[in-house]
Amino acid sequence: MRTAVYIGDHNIETVEAVPVRPERGQVQIAVAYTGLCGTDLHIIHGSMDGRVTRPLAFGHEMSGTIAAIGEGITEWAVGDAVTVMPLEWDGTCPACLAGNSHICQNLVFVGIDSPGSLQELWTVPADLLVRLPSGMSLSHAALAEPVAVAVHDVRRSELTTGDKVVVIGGGPIGVLIATVARHAGAEVAVIEPEAGRRAQIEELGFATVDPRGEDQVQWVERWTDGAGADVVFEVSGAAQAVLGATALAKVRGTLVVVAIHPVPREIDLQRLFWRELRILGARVYQRTDFEEAVRLLGDGVIPADELISRIVPLDGIPAAIDDLENGRALKVLVAVGGEQ
Amino acid sequence: MRTAVYIGDHNIETVEAVPVRPERGQVQIAVAYTGLCGTDLHIIHGSMDGRVTRPLAFGHEMSGTIAAIGEGITEWAVGDAVTVMPLEWDGTCPACLAGNSHICQNLVFVGIDSPGSLQELWTVPADLLVRLPSGMSLSHAALAEPVAVAVHDVRRSELTTGDKVVVIGGGPIGVLIATVARHAGAEVAVIEPEAGRRAQIEELGFATVDPRGEDQVQWVERWTDGAGADVVFEVSGAAQAVLGATALAKVRGTLVVVAIHPVPREIDLQRLFWRELRILGARVYQRTDFEEAVRLLGDGVIPADELISRIVPLDGIPAAIDDLENGRALKVLVAVGGEQ
Repeated sequence: MRTAVYIGDHNIETVEAVPVRPERGQVQIAVAYTGLCGTDLHIIHGSMDGRVTRPLAFGHEMSGTIAAIGEGITEWAVGDAVTVMPLEWDGTCPACLAGNSHICQNLVFVGIDSPGSLQELWTVPADLLVRLPSGMSLSHAALAEPVAVAVHDVRRSELTTGDKVVVIGGGPIGVLIATVARHAGAEVAVIEPEAGRRAQIEELGFATVDPRGEDQVQWVERWTDGAGADVVFEVSGAAQAVLGATALAKVRGTLVVVAIHPVPREIDLQRLFWRELRILGARVYQRTDFEEAVRLLGDGVIPADELISRIVPLDGIPAAIDDLENGRALKVLVAVGGEQ
Repeated sequence: MRTAVYIGDHNIETVEAVPVRPERGQVQIAVAYTGLCGTDLHIIHGSMDGRVTRPLAFGHEMSGTIAAIGEGITEWAVGDAVTVMPLEWDGTCPACLAGNSHICQNLVFVGIDSPGSLQELWTVPADLLVRLPSGMSLSHAALAEPVAVAVHDVRRSELTTGDKVVVIGGGPIGVLIATVARHAGAEVAVIEPEAGRRAQIEELGFATVDPRGEDQVQWVERWTDGAGADVVFEVSGAAQAVLGATALAKVRGTLVVVAIHPVPREIDLQRLFWRELRILGARVYQRTDFEEAVRLLGDGVIPADELISRIVPLDGIPAAIDDLENGRALKVLVAVGGEQ
């Protein structure tokens, strides 16, 4: 079978490999599609070399059908359409024992800490499978993982119907959060400096703010009749965005930090204090989020076709990464199984 | 009557003034004691000159007895022992309408934004009064306001019985938070660099950590069997304390920022994300907090005698401030009415 592997220093190779046979409790999936995400870019840039074992078949946003099953599997059959929730926890650490196994203190993120889905045949524990409804497009289903991130972020924010929500950063996750928040009953505005992205986001029916063209604090003040936003999602990863985010939230409002900030960031703690704000970290998802993500995709809530800029073959990853990094694509899927 | 006023540039004067007669809905209080707090020091240093009108009779932590009542007052009588919750809200801003009047967007903090309790006779709206139980020491009762801050901070943290709690900073508010948290069932450790303060805190029965003498992260790891603290209170106001605070909290743990940080501070958002932490701002108190503070003082839960370093006369304020700033006193009360 063919697989795409990161071998170090920005290099990806497509190589032949022997498929892993499914052991007891495992299934082997014929991968249809694998989406490329920001974390994959970090891996390829070498910023995660201290964590990943090379060569690494990366990839963790996927869809496929079951090709073979190991012993002891009764709930799944060959041919079932599935996606994978790529988390393995130890079940024994304090976080797991307290019911937070999704952020286990020794979490294994499949596709980063162990081989991922850029393999034609991918073997994983059956516990990780999430069933796809019959008839769901496998390309749409490959978005389940990032949609689950958005579902988790929105659930963590505890936003309610009628809330005014600001999303800072209009990349794929920002758009998904905006979509899921709107579906939950919120009114959503997206702050995004790039004009092309703003146009696309407006086509999806969201208000947008150009932070370079107008005063975002005044904009939100007007939009919320002087109250401030109920919830602000920081999805940009920019230091200035974090510093300005607290000024957008209402008294007792919530700021959810979704983006990864590799270095400490300045936060306006005077504002946090003055308005009794709440800042929440949000990471990955729980099973309920993943199942909800599949439902939302199945119900057509997620603008999957608008988000998927293109589908490329397994050896098209280097060019796709270049497109992603230069703003020429929002989400790129790799047709691992060859069908496009 | 005599009153102590801030006249600008570190200067306080004791002057004669005409008492304000209580109008309809107001009461005049014969002030017994007024505590000096960190905010008073900020006022005297001139850091709040943009906010305060001079000369300002400051002071907002107090106890006294009603000396006269205005028209329309039926619930109060001359001689009643009282303290004052020094907040006035407009009742019409978005924060008030959402039920958060204690942090009204146009809050008047009595003693900062309007005349305070360093007056022998102080006239305030009757709505602000909180009744003291008969027999309660008026010097102890003067701690009701800072105790209410601690009650509010602990309530906001949502800590529960059995939680392990770290308080960063062993000043008066830190000690009060530790006391209230322990009363709520938590096990508490206080991080405090100053040896004299640590000794005093240990006498009150709390574990202490010297952040200069040992690795506080390792200490908390051991203390919590590898989990991290359920709740961390940042009461020090120090930049380094904020930066290190997130490393002390467990997965889904809470950091309450109690100290005032006048400039933005660096926060480890990678840790916030990784452990799905929650950071909460906490400001002042609600009436329920103030009433609980009076109950805790009445029940002897608060180590009032240990906290009150000394009681000084009205003209002893400059020397007392010097003591507070140089670590020679924890809490100083001013015997406004002359009785010591």
